[in-house]
Amino acid sequence: MKKYRLSELTAGEIRRLCQRNPIDDEEIVSVCRFIFQAVAEKGDEAVRSFTLQFDGVEIDEFRVGADAINEAVQETAPEVMTALQQAAANIRKFHSAQQIPEKPVETQPGVTCWRASRAISPIGIYVPGGTAVLPSTVLMLGIPARLAGCARIILCVPPDSEGKVSPEVLAAAQIAGIRQIFKVGGAQAIAAMTFGTESIPQVEKIFGPGNRYVQTAKLLATFHGVAIDMVAGPSEVLVIADETASAEFVASDLISQAEHGGDSRVVLVSTSEKLIEDVLGELHKQAAGLPRENYVQASLSEGLALLAESLDEAFDFSNRYAPEHLILNVDDPRQYQGLIQSAGSVFIGPWSPEVAGDYASGTNHTLPTSGMARAYSGVSMDSFVKKITFQELTPEGLRSLAPTLEALARIESLEGHRRAVSIRIEKLDEDESDG
Amino acid sequence: MKKYRLSELTAGEIRRLCQRNPIDDEEIVSVCRFIFQAVAEKGDEAVRSFTLQFDGVEIDEFRVGADAINEAVQETAPEVMTALQQAAANIRKFHSAQQIPEKPVETQPGVTCWRASRAISPIGIYVPGGTAVLPSTVLMLGIPARLAGCARIILCVPPDSEGKVSPEVLAAAQIAGIRQIFKVGGAQAIAAMTFGTESIPQVEKIFGPGNRYVQTAKLLATFHGVAIDMVAGPSEVLVIADETASAEFVASDLISQAEHGGDSRVVLVSTSEKLIEDVLGELHKQAAGLPRENYVQASLSEGLALLAESLDEAFDFSNRYAPEHLILNVDDPRQYQGLIQSAGSVFIGPWSPEVAGDYASGTNHTLPTSGMARAYSGVSMDSFVKKITFQELTPEGLRSLAPTLEALARIESLEGHRRAVSIRIEKLDEDESDG
Repeated sequence: MKKYRLSELTAGEIRRLCQRNPIDDEEIVSVCRFIFQAVAEKGDEAVRSFTLQFDGVEIDEFRVGADAINEAVQETAPEVMTALQQAAANIRKFHSAQQIPEKPVETQPGVTCWRASRAISPIGIYVPGGTAVLPSTVLMLGIPARLAGCARIILCVPPDSEGKVSPEVLAAAQIAGIRQIFKVGGAQAIAAMTFGTESIPQVEKIFGPGNRYVQTAKLLATFHGVAIDMVAGPSEVLVIADETASAEFVASDLISQAEHGGDSRVVLVSTSEKLIEDVLGELHKQAAGLPRENYVQASLSEGLALLAESLDEAFDFSNRYAPEHLILNVDDPRQYQGLIQSAGSVFIGPWSPEVAGDYASGTNHTLPTSGMARAYSGVSMDSFVKKITFQELTPEGLRSLAPTLEALARIESLEGHRRAVSIRIEKLDEDESDG
Repeated sequence: MKKYRLSELTAGEIRRLCQRNPIDDEEIVSVCRFIFQAVAEKGDEAVRSFTLQFDGVEIDEFRVGADAINEAVQETAPEVMTALQQAAANIRKFHSAQQIPEKPVETQPGVTCWRASRAISPIGIYVPGGTAVLPSTVLMLGIPARLAGCARIILCVPPDSEGKVSPEVLAAAQIAGIRQIFKVGGAQAIAAMTFGTESIPQVEKIFGPGNRYVQTAKLLATFHGVAIDMVAGPSEVLVIADETASAEFVASDLISQAEHGGDSRVVLVSTSEKLIEDVLGELHKQAAGLPRENYVQASLSEGLALLAESLDEAFDFSNRYAPEHLILNVDDPRQYQGLIQSAGSVFIGPWSPEVAGDYASGTNHTLPTSGMARAYSGVSMDSFVKKITFQELTPEGLRSLAPTLEALARIESLEGHRRAVSIRIEKLDEDESDG
């Protein structure tokens, strides 16, 4: 961990500490453009050849059959099925509560406006393979999608070296109610869902994590009218801790983040110099011998341990950093809620490790990274619907709004707009004088 | 208008009719990349030189002074001020109702999760100049931004040939409560708000309409971590009308859309061949002599007049097309609300012209175009906030969730995740045996 005293840093130095993971990499963009063009032109044939090239495996049939899904569920250990089901139940409960119907609003007499939600369909979910099997991501995206009413859900997962998908991922898909699963990964999966191929359907919105190629491909997809959840960079945690925090707990939270990969970001901000030293000692102890110790060490060596003069200064830095995960390990933590301006998800107090939200408390783990929490929210029910506005005016409503509409049309020099109103008012006048 | 009978079109032909305005134009992308690079490197100097090149005017001081804003308010006709204020009041009323607080959810005993909104700040609003002065857009974006609590709002408007901004735009900004106004337009305005320059602040999210350069620049901004509202293409309307509709009203709505520009899209879908003929006659009559007749004619010549066998077929086409604006001019229109899957904003019945929503009914006029209504919503209060999830577990909550968390960490081979839980459970066990 790199140690700094916040009060000794200049504004520019703080800005640099907060900068991370630029996505604008020309080389990756041009590789992704090439893949997009090939998939747009050649469909399955191109996807097959990129799969051979990048995943090292030949795939004839991308779609995972119903038999394979059923087998996977049989193969999955009962305690894993139970865990997936409990996680699913909590995710369902938290996300259901986000569906709040809105009432129509009469903005002025005779002018009624309202909004209604409609599910987006088809949608595409991307779940990475690589160094970790991620059934939790299948639940985090699949469950709210089903709750929102997305009629068609496409899941793409890269095949392993034997051309298979892990049984737990398939079991999670079964629990989430996803049946269209395709063995395809990387930028070619995103391209396939953007354009559609002979076997992989075109979708309206693409969700999910992935490496820089996948994320850049998602950005390119937006140029073709496909929406995306967000660009997801490496995972991050920022812990704010005071002298009352347990160094053991804090170290375990930093490590659980660091083990995601060498590019994971871990930041500790504390008002206690002693706590920082204790945490550093604990990190050393706890990291030793972990199966993914190499990732942990790589990530920790780039980590930040920041001494703050006050909790205000700590929250101020955290808001600038806008971490994906923010853990509050301070005395009476709830009182600081209002100070938090930018973060993906917040974990309050010593008994709320980030792992709870990663898996099973009910909140979504698809969260803004790389400082994007300044402007983006994590995935929620909102992500799977579009909200349509409606309005209905009565003749009286239109009449009372007409002078305003006509005046504004006039300033904007849009005579046709003005006439769409005046033609109706003339009709109302006629009808009245007839009556 | 091009006439077709929907039942005679193949699926491929319908798809082609629904395709419009691809944004992936290599040449525009490369111009915008060039502008971005120059502004990133040279700041104001580059912005000044692009302004001279594209707007034909030298601007020393981009910021519009408080005096100029006050003067503009004085200059604006009283009936225009009244109209802007009535529009503002309705927009405020409709958008306020979208702020619905969410309750915490106890997903299982001792596990409490909730969401809270935080305003995004600073934000940037872009309002185009060009062929129309658009104070209404200032209200549509500025009012919800202020309501949401965005602390800093930057407004960029291209200067006219005299280096000025129209007084009505400044008056609307005053009503919306926007004070930081800059005379800068085009891709250079978007680049300036993306990187920040000596005089123009960097923002977290950019909103607003504009030509293809502006929209492509907004997409590029997302590569630099800046969020955008959406990519906005040319404006569109689709009218569904049956034999009860007034051909005069329908024609006036199509024309009010067509006058936005030659690339505006107008579509009529009707179950009545007679109505279609009557509307075509009315279009001819109403278009003649309009100040923007050239735009109207250009747009109408590319417009679609589609005969449907049934209203179901009409709604089916409309959902595929996903129009920005959808007008229902049919008998008892409210009953068809449920059939609408994809549209930006819907206008119900003969007394609800699109113009009402364009200006003053209260709904937002910043809406998804080019088929993006399949996945995107129009601008709303949601657009100006991010929602942060929070969670707090009690020791008992963590204990009951622990087996699930540990089982999932095990399948994902994340031992550090598992230990962040087990280390806490061990502590609880110790404390208990101590107690």
